[in-house]
Amino acid sequence: MTVARRILVIGGLAAGPSAASKAARTSPEAEVVLLEQGESVSYGICEIPYYVSGEVAAEGLTPFTPASLASTRRIDVRVLHRVEEIQPYRRTVVVRNLREQTVSEMRYDRLVIATGARAKTLGLAGEEARNVFRVRALEEGWALRKFLEQERPRTAVVIGGGYIGMEMADAFKSRGLEVALVHNDALPMKGLEQETRQRVREELEKNGVRFIGPCVAEGFVRGKDDTVSHVATSGGPLEAGVVVVAIGVEPETALARSAGVRVGSSGGILTDQRQQTSADNILAAGDCCEVKNLVTGRQCYIPLATIASKAGWTAGENAAGGNAVFRGAIRSIAVRVFGLEVAQVGASEEDARRGGIDALSETITAWSRVASMPGSQKVTVRLLADRKTGRLLGANVSGPEGAVLRANTLAVAIQQRLTIADMQQWDLAYSPPFTPLWDPLLVAANAMNRKLRPT
Amino acid sequence: MTVARRILVIGGLAAGPSAASKAARTSPEAEVVLLEQGESVSYGICEIPYYVSGEVAAEGLTPFTPASLASTRRIDVRVLHRVEEIQPYRRTVVVRNLREQTVSEMRYDRLVIATGARAKTLGLAGEEARNVFRVRALEEGWALRKFLEQERPRTAVVIGGGYIGMEMADAFKSRGLEVALVHNDALPMKGLEQETRQRVREELEKNGVRFIGPCVAEGFVRGKDDTVSHVATSGGPLEAGVVVVAIGVEPETALARSAGVRVGSSGGILTDQRQQTSADNILAAGDCCEVKNLVTGRQCYIPLATIASKAGWTAGENAAGGNAVFRGAIRSIAVRVFGLEVAQVGASEEDARRGGIDALSETITAWSRVASMPGSQKVTVRLLADRKTGRLLGANVSGPEGAVLRANTLAVAIQQRLTIADMQQWDLAYSPPFTPLWDPLLVAANAMNRKLRPT
Repeated sequence: MTVARRILVIGGLAAGPSAASKAARTSPEAEVVLLEQGESVSYGICEIPYYVSGEVAAEGLTPFTPASLASTRRIDVRVLHRVEEIQPYRRTVVVRNLREQTVSEMRYDRLVIATGARAKTLGLAGEEARNVFRVRALEEGWALRKFLEQERPRTAVVIGGGYIGMEMADAFKSRGLEVALVHNDALPMKGLEQETRQRVREELEKNGVRFIGPCVAEGFVRGKDDTVSHVATSGGPLEAGVVVVAIGVEPETALARSAGVRVGSSGGILTDQRQQTSADNILAAGDCCEVKNLVTGRQCYIPLATIASKAGWTAGENAAGGNAVFRGAIRSIAVRVFGLEVAQVGASEEDARRGGIDALSETITAWSRVASMPGSQKVTVRLLADRKTGRLLGANVSGPEGAVLRANTLAVAIQQRLTIADMQQWDLAYSPPFTPLWDPLLVAANAMNRKLRPT
Repeated sequence: MTVARRILVIGGLAAGPSAASKAARTSPEAEVVLLEQGESVSYGICEIPYYVSGEVAAEGLTPFTPASLASTRRIDVRVLHRVEEIQPYRRTVVVRNLREQTVSEMRYDRLVIATGARAKTLGLAGEEARNVFRVRALEEGWALRKFLEQERPRTAVVIGGGYIGMEMADAFKSRGLEVALVHNDALPMKGLEQETRQRVREELEKNGVRFIGPCVAEGFVRGKDDTVSHVATSGGPLEAGVVVVAIGVEPETALARSAGVRVGSSGGILTDQRQQTSADNILAAGDCCEVKNLVTGRQCYIPLATIASKAGWTAGENAAGGNAVFRGAIRSIAVRVFGLEVAQVGASEEDARRGGIDALSETITAWSRVASMPGSQKVTVRLLADRKTGRLLGANVSGPEGAVLRANTLAVAIQQRLTIADMQQWDLAYSPPFTPLWDPLLVAANAMNRKLRPT
């Protein structure tokens, strides 16, 4: 490979700034240019629900301006610059300056594609109405909160029962709206196990969210002033002062595909562990890419900021001549559903079934701290292990406190291919205000061991 | 080995009940007898400071009565029974019934010694006064709280700046006493790193505890009614309405040694990984034993309930004919010091130095949750790694929230011999109310990596 004098990065949200920063740090001689079609860079897309609820202030969403990112990280940041074509044979991109409406060519030595994902749409008329939102861009977050504050709708319909749906239902409720949550299944949060999903549904309902599922949105009923007044669903019409559509995302790969970069079966860009694509001198990272699932060993699509940041780092370091490796991910998700912490790490039973793994699951409920301490709550831990080897494959952890950070400990166990027998030996700290003598993780491991090795 | 028809367990606090329960479960045919010289069994010794503070009710200290332990676990529980001699050649113990003052012999097939530890004493006249306490037994906890409630002392002197000292200072303060903490070093909590210790001292002082160190207690000044009125120290006299001596514990092994059981250099009983002692048919577990340190590979003395419980289980299972292994411990300690969570897992710099390991340390401070979320606090993570291999050896984690459970994740990494490079790949969950995009553990791993591999 030639020395990378100029590194271009396409995409300014998560993986892009991560790649650009790491490239600039790795190679002080390189010119690193970040091209972003929107006005903002590196903002807190995952914080938007908390901005909508009012917990996070507007400044909290934008730790960086384009100028501050440029100066602190030594990156040439160009917002309102849309890449319209990649010409790999010439190592050139065609860029449109959206402010001045000029088009120019830029050469690169290495290119990093970090074009991210776009929100899936329902494809229904009315979806572009003024009171129908997605929460995939900063501007949408701003617009949604402004709408809530200025027009004070009384009812909200959230379409989609994934983790963004949970966060938005919570956010609307905290603002006093009546909330209906429309989901295409009987229980929310598809990746989780049945009993965790049941618990999430109960938590939603306990907090006054009307969960409607299985149910699909079939149309929007127009109201006045370019708004919708109702969502027509398979279960009947729902009054909707405001609507959020959160039915998932799909990789944004048009640019990459037009340059001949290979994509995988999920539609995400294929890369190796160095984030190199099938095209010379082109790397990719983030929600536009597939990632290796470390539990199943397969390529899959897991659009999460944590993965995007690490893959971006790796792409940036390698674009600048380094030799970094991103081994892959296990899929770690956490969400607050009102008073409940919910986390899922690693494979689900469904994943195991599809992967042909003979897996066993076991669920325990134990105290998060010493039972007699004020504030102690019950934590539920559900483990999934390989019946033959005892290897931990996945886990759900939920409870009013102490669930997410415990799930992270299990994430490490899953990623490092530890077994239930390893877990039983864990020397975890014990301190009455924080943890009981037998941490819920040990209680779970012991219970699973009895199931794996019945005497 | 013969079949174990009768398994005797000496000691009813932590390892003993654990061993007896596991033995009864492993071998339904065996007769399992638990001999305890005190009146209570299996009580929450680590909860005593929280009982003194009033956070835990009296019932919280005694999840089991002798009768409930006996019936739920199928154990013959005999309190007020003191074993006075072990006769290994005859497989017999001599037991004194303290209620009836009778002495009898009991035969055993397997014996588990779980005699625990006793509080170190200062060896000063007056140490047995009515208002001088240790917190190593349930009765002492009861007596201390009763004393505080009935006699309402205004001042407390805590002698010893370990974790029990921290908890007792906190407990006394929460009851409104003036507290002086006398410690034989300039900073509290000897196992922790210097900067963590400094922070703990600041937290003590911020909360009105007068930390006095280096300083040693030199005598007690008698007051009226069999109390002491002052503690004489190398730094001058301290008024003392109540005194707690918490200067550590030492293994209680007189019985074991008289039976010819080998002890290690720390004075604790030596066992193998099956908790077998040097004497046939005699196992041992808990604070009377040494344990293998999984970081240094050496036998050492770590009197902690977590280790006692696991070692007890192992001893119980093996006494009943099983084949369990307790691999060892890394030493995981957590304590609440007023508003601060403090945890130490694995080796300290001092341990590494003494073990001849070339170790590097690195400290970072990062947000526990997304910075802009309400309630987010800074967590400080100090890692210690082997310079050559990058293996994680130990860590200190402290902060107002999210420190202890994160330390537990590091405990797993240390125990499983993971490297900093492994840690950098961790796929940890990210959710604004609980964790930032780059968890403090990842921030720490990345910082340590830069130190290990400077570019």
